[in-house]
Amino acid sequence: IARICRALNGTTIASLARCSTRDVQAAASSLEASSDPRIHVFIATSELHLRNKLFIGREECLERVAHAVTFARTLVDDVEFSAEDATRSDVDFLCRVVDVALKAGATTINVPDTVGYALPGDMSRLISTLLERVPDLRDHTLSVHCHDDLGLAVANSLAGVDAGARQVECTVNGIGERAGNAALEEIVMALRVRPDEQGHETGVRAERLYRASRTLSYLTGIHPQPNKAIVGKNAFAHEAGIHQHGMLADPSTYEIMTPEMVGAPATQLVIGKHSGRHGLESRYKELGYALVADELDRVARGVKALAERKKVILDEDLLSILHRGVLEDVREVHQLDSLSVKCGGVVSEARVAVTTEGGIPRTARGTGDGPIAAVFSALEALMDFTIVLEDLQIRAVTPGQDAVGEVTIRARVDGQTFTGRGGATDVVLASGQAFVHVVNKAEQARVLEERHFAHTADSWAV
Amino acid sequence: IARICRALNGTTIASLARCSTRDVQAAASSLEASSDPRIHVFIATSELHLRNKLFIGREECLERVAHAVTFARTLVDDVEFSAEDATRSDVDFLCRVVDVALKAGATTINVPDTVGYALPGDMSRLISTLLERVPDLRDHTLSVHCHDDLGLAVANSLAGVDAGARQVECTVNGIGERAGNAALEEIVMALRVRPDEQGHETGVRAERLYRASRTLSYLTGIHPQPNKAIVGKNAFAHEAGIHQHGMLADPSTYEIMTPEMVGAPATQLVIGKHSGRHGLESRYKELGYALVADELDRVARGVKALAERKKVILDEDLLSILHRGVLEDVREVHQLDSLSVKCGGVVSEARVAVTTEGGIPRTARGTGDGPIAAVFSALEALMDFTIVLEDLQIRAVTPGQDAVGEVTIRARVDGQTFTGRGGATDVVLASGQAFVHVVNKAEQARVLEERHFAHTADSWAV
Repeated sequence: IARICRALNGTTIASLARCSTRDVQAAASSLEASSDPRIHVFIATSELHLRNKLFIGREECLERVAHAVTFARTLVDDVEFSAEDATRSDVDFLCRVVDVALKAGATTINVPDTVGYALPGDMSRLISTLLERVPDLRDHTLSVHCHDDLGLAVANSLAGVDAGARQVECTVNGIGERAGNAALEEIVMALRVRPDEQGHETGVRAERLYRASRTLSYLTGIHPQPNKAIVGKNAFAHEAGIHQHGMLADPSTYEIMTPEMVGAPATQLVIGKHSGRHGLESRYKELGYALVADELDRVARGVKALAERKKVILDEDLLSILHRGVLEDVREVHQLDSLSVKCGGVVSEARVAVTTEGGIPRTARGTGDGPIAAVFSALEALMDFTIVLEDLQIRAVTPGQDAVGEVTIRARVDGQTFTGRGGATDVVLASGQAFVHVVNKAEQARVLEERHFAHTADSWAV
Repeated sequence: IARICRALNGTTIASLARCSTRDVQAAASSLEASSDPRIHVFIATSELHLRNKLFIGREECLERVAHAVTFARTLVDDVEFSAEDATRSDVDFLCRVVDVALKAGATTINVPDTVGYALPGDMSRLISTLLERVPDLRDHTLSVHCHDDLGLAVANSLAGVDAGARQVECTVNGIGERAGNAALEEIVMALRVRPDEQGHETGVRAERLYRASRTLSYLTGIHPQPNKAIVGKNAFAHEAGIHQHGMLADPSTYEIMTPEMVGAPATQLVIGKHSGRHGLESRYKELGYALVADELDRVARGVKALAERKKVILDEDLLSILHRGVLEDVREVHQLDSLSVKCGGVVSEARVAVTTEGGIPRTARGTGDGPIAAVFSALEALMDFTIVLEDLQIRAVTPGQDAVGEVTIRARVDGQTFTGRGGATDVVLASGQAFVHVVNKAEQARVLEERHFAHTADSWAV
């Protein structure tokens, strides 16, 4: 969080804390560099959580809330309070908790459906009841935080907004614990497409939704299913003959929004070997990226190299070329120079050449069950780490036989988990790149002083 | 549809038809072998569709409905009528259409939110209004059919049920046009987990949901995202430290349903080289499959072969072994005997050996941008088809370095699209298998008399 605060200005950054002095203090420290710091304290309020997880009673819960919120307000002006498992909490007790939090100085009150249990009617009633029975709430921001275990996170969030909530906690692509959180892009577009029934503005620039989704997928290796609303690969694809006929006659027959509204590329075919820098620049602009001169230089080199091997360069290729490098800030201590593999038999054999620290070239051989396993075994022999592979994903990011394969691996090194990526028309080469990427990240983690800050994202959820 | 009717008994099979004599007649013919045939006729009722797609007025629309439904009722007793784009239709006109359809003999009236435009409140009001203003409806089945363009298909379906609908049109994994349809598994579990608020029974055996989802993914190559509700890989995964702590104290703190309720495997680690047939049989039973003796023989051979190359066999491996073969009924005209590849340089080289029609062994060489492209080029040289690759997906179906890679390719051959699959620890080998699978399917299509029945699934949607 400290790093995010240094990188972002003018954005509210919230740091989460349990109701303990130590947590609240740590949250405040992490926010020191923020222009708009918020401490978000939470405690569970359902009988189930109080009794079976926290082993405390209601009075003790109220005391902890009062103490933590009061203390947080001595450190920052903006304090959010969440009643974890609110939708399964006794509503009388919940009203008391909210009242205590407000009196202690909370500026935002959040109502999490922690386990994704609520139906839209429940959420609507709960928000209305809170606004009715805790009059102070009307001068503060009421928020909803919904999980998608029953596929209702978006509907529940909208029901909350309809009943008076004015903050929605949601995530790009709906990622999060278990079945995830409410998908930001769906909430934004539901409010945008149906202003008649709802009349709320989010301020989100919808034309950047696709790009945000794609960036997140690239970083996490978690891709939305093709039929995911708004950002899925097929969200704007019409396959049924009757639908295609309608689209040709009048697109509004089967489209309530255009791909352009969310920044999704309308046409897939773009750039080839003979495309100029200008065409490249304008295509990136259409995709939502205004490139500065040296970014353009870098991607132009990448596109040229790819065009030598691939006739048609697609939007996905362009995004892949742009993101490689831009999104990686890890120093390339080890570089994969070349590899060669023989596979197809029972055992695959690989030979790799790597330049390591100080520019020393080294080679190694390895064997394995398949070409990728053989390459990993050869690379591991050159590295000063024990690498345990947890997941490997290969995606053809472009259609056709000359597709670019994007490989994402997740591996455990020195007790930490790292994600590495590679991209090439040769998936074996791309896998080797991803492996070296992981090793470079692990090298970096070793030298970082603030080692415990690295790679612990994703491990908090209300 | 004719084939499905021959395979299934005691299940209502609906065949879709536009409001034309020819379509209705074709629908009836396809249903001849069914024990419970239903003809489902539809026509668009919104001004937008009437004017800009069908180029007809309201009276013409009413006449077509009356004629098609009356004609359908002369052929079968069970006739469903859908008013396409109902949620954007004028409600007075919609009531008239429904009234005409009922008077003509329709037994079920379906209300599609064709473009995924409705909010739950809209669907609730529309269903209530129809039931109020078309009194005959109360003696018939009212149905909802929702699309997920705004992420609201499940909530809209439940709102429809709450207002009086008693049929829900939905799909496993929510697949369908664009962002897809309402997900069956989410609707079933929302009604199951929250009977207090809803009080409806679906009759679906929830413990088979996971298996149905996995089978569909395997057949289509379309996999739910990890954070998909109910059937996603992470739907029951708890990563946050606070959640894990709660789960250890009491699972109900963070779980509103158990993986067992939907038939998802609770534990991933199962079978190894030394496991016996008995253990195998019982593990398959836990996964929802009661294997007969020769199925067990076949999978036991597959498991043994895999166990030679892989230390730990996971549930996903078992399902992959079981489905390969069981779900494939295509004759293996061509068989991939072996392949060897050299890759890692600019050009990859492959050599393949295939046994073709009549047991003739042949070999060929090919080159390409990567090992997979090289194998495809070599295989294509041996085949009497022009194969245009449309999509290639590689998934590690199991974690770890000795993972089984599952390769799905979609390719166009002779103007038809085929899906092929392969699975092996060597992704290059698996890709070769998938390619040969496509060719075998194309061979079969060539010899099928009823060629136009093959591979046209997925092209209809209301």
